[in-house]
Amino acid sequence: MMKTAVLGAGSWGTALATVLAEGGYAPLLWCRSAAVADEINEKHTTNDYLPGVELPGSLRATTELADLRDRDLILVVTPSKAIAEVAEKLAAVGICPDTVLLACTKGIERDTGRRMSEILQDIFPDNPIAVLSGPNHAEEVARKLPTATTIAASDHEVAERIQAAFTLPWFRSYTTTDVAGVELGGAIKNVFAIAGGIVEGLGLGDNAKAALVTRGLTELTRLGVALGGDAKTFQGLSGVGDLVVTCYSELSRNHRVGRGLGEGKSLEEITAGMGHMVAEGVPNTLSIYEAARRLEVDTPIIDQVHHVLYEGKSPAEALTDLFLREPKPEVDDRCDGAAT
Amino acid sequence: MMKTAVLGAGSWGTALATVLAEGGYAPLLWCRSAAVADEINEKHTTNDYLPGVELPGSLRATTELADLRDRDLILVVTPSKAIAEVAEKLAAVGICPDTVLLACTKGIERDTGRRMSEILQDIFPDNPIAVLSGPNHAEEVARKLPTATTIAASDHEVAERIQAAFTLPWFRSYTTTDVAGVELGGAIKNVFAIAGGIVEGLGLGDNAKAALVTRGLTELTRLGVALGGDAKTFQGLSGVGDLVVTCYSELSRNHRVGRGLGEGKSLEEITAGMGHMVAEGVPNTLSIYEAARRLEVDTPIIDQVHHVLYEGKSPAEALTDLFLREPKPEVDDRCDGAAT
Repeated sequence: MMKTAVLGAGSWGTALATVLAEGGYAPLLWCRSAAVADEINEKHTTNDYLPGVELPGSLRATTELADLRDRDLILVVTPSKAIAEVAEKLAAVGICPDTVLLACTKGIERDTGRRMSEILQDIFPDNPIAVLSGPNHAEEVARKLPTATTIAASDHEVAERIQAAFTLPWFRSYTTTDVAGVELGGAIKNVFAIAGGIVEGLGLGDNAKAALVTRGLTELTRLGVALGGDAKTFQGLSGVGDLVVTCYSELSRNHRVGRGLGEGKSLEEITAGMGHMVAEGVPNTLSIYEAARRLEVDTPIIDQVHHVLYEGKSPAEALTDLFLREPKPEVDDRCDGAAT
Repeated sequence: MMKTAVLGAGSWGTALATVLAEGGYAPLLWCRSAAVADEINEKHTTNDYLPGVELPGSLRATTELADLRDRDLILVVTPSKAIAEVAEKLAAVGICPDTVLLACTKGIERDTGRRMSEILQDIFPDNPIAVLSGPNHAEEVARKLPTATTIAASDHEVAERIQAAFTLPWFRSYTTTDVAGVELGGAIKNVFAIAGGIVEGLGLGDNAKAALVTRGLTELTRLGVALGGDAKTFQGLSGVGDLVVTCYSELSRNHRVGRGLGEGKSLEEITAGMGHMVAEGVPNTLSIYEAARRLEVDTPIIDQVHHVLYEGKSPAEALTDLFLREPKPEVDDRCDGAAT
């Protein structure tokens, strides 16, 4: 049986560690904070991240990266802006060249546009790298509610080995070799979750939200393909599935940011109220908007979210500008893609 | 300017009539019930169907089919099981051969498997036929909340003429020539709306619902293509858009049926509580299940909804059977389609 570890003890890292523990993989969970590690080891709880959840006894926490040296599979679940720094430290303590690194954080690096798996591959050029992404609220996974996710690795055999560790009666995983597509879906969808929240905050109703999600999927696919993903991947759990769950769920932080904006609050007010939780969609919007401009891809919804977040445009005006575009066919045959 | 009429004064027919009225098309609304026609003409309300909505003064109601003889565009918006009967009566009073008939009802005829536009084409072989379908709650359209929809006609020029009548600052329409794809999305999605309601009624959470919607889109596309639709159409408003709005909205009757089933109520109890409103998904499930069996298309979710509705299977058991299938790749390369 593989020896496993999880790097990052936020709600998602801890929830994934509970899945490994339930499957008998006795994971080691690396925490930045000694207080969090002590709480997990002594009380089997992590009340700042998964309040009310009793963690499995076989889940052990550590603050020592060196403890991860003998692991076969390491999940990397730190916030996107910390991933390079923590991975460098892990590389410094040394891991085996056949240890599989599984990136479970969604996002794109602000300055470089690198996906999480690309950051890891740059730091661990010899190790197999995989990614896990899907419509997965950490809170529900920790409570053992039915969940499905996608695991991607360019080597299909690697993906299947990880799939075996993420198969429980209440947790189902699918495999693919399209690493870029899976990561891009998870990163880009955050921008649409903010847009969906704005629609809700403005009180525009279900029809408007459905139109936004539909046109958002078209836009996500168009940009995702331009960035190297396979169009089919965006129809899966890590694409449309994740788009839908973040646009419709009260549990999504990005969605809450959008709703607050729609209700007239400032970004500062909203994020101040979220404490230590990070809404990845806010920095993601900037990197994704810049990538779209660089590639000259038409992204009307992403543009408007960018204008609201970074240029002070009013949410109502942004939505009006989206809705008042010229009437046109739904699928634009000139580019064999959907019209915008 | 086209002379327009709407056949069927339920909530959706009346809401579409308000759009035409707002655009200056002064529609004539045919009602089966004289009481409904009188209420519309005298009070500009229709409290059984759109409570609290004030209808435009230019919207006039009639109970005489013969009044529709001089119309250029007739929207057909009766319940699916009544459409053939009412269309036959309209044919008997006679309309011009260049009158466009626009089918706005979602569904498939139980005995024959015909789509609504096929029923109309059989009765009016010489007339141009078009369809309108999308993620559109009648109540929101009547309240002028932002809405987008798809208009399909095999002759693109016909679709564009209709599009002009359905373009308002708060109502946006897209055109396509894939009539079959647009109608199939609207009919098949009702089955998944029931499944989504079941997931909610069972309290399974957002992750499970997102997985169901994602796998539902795959299944809808696979069956829809087998029945003659274009795969791209199912990525649009009439496909994924309508799937999402019916799976997530409290306003969807099919969703309410599913939720009731998930909560342990019987189908009789649930439909009795819905009065004169029809949940098209219940008869649709039977015709769609039969079509899938006839074409030998793999439809695991539709099968389970059918078993719950028509074979007395418990919703919890149906969901468990769906979730415990063998682990597999997300996209099945053997058939170049998504795995199930």
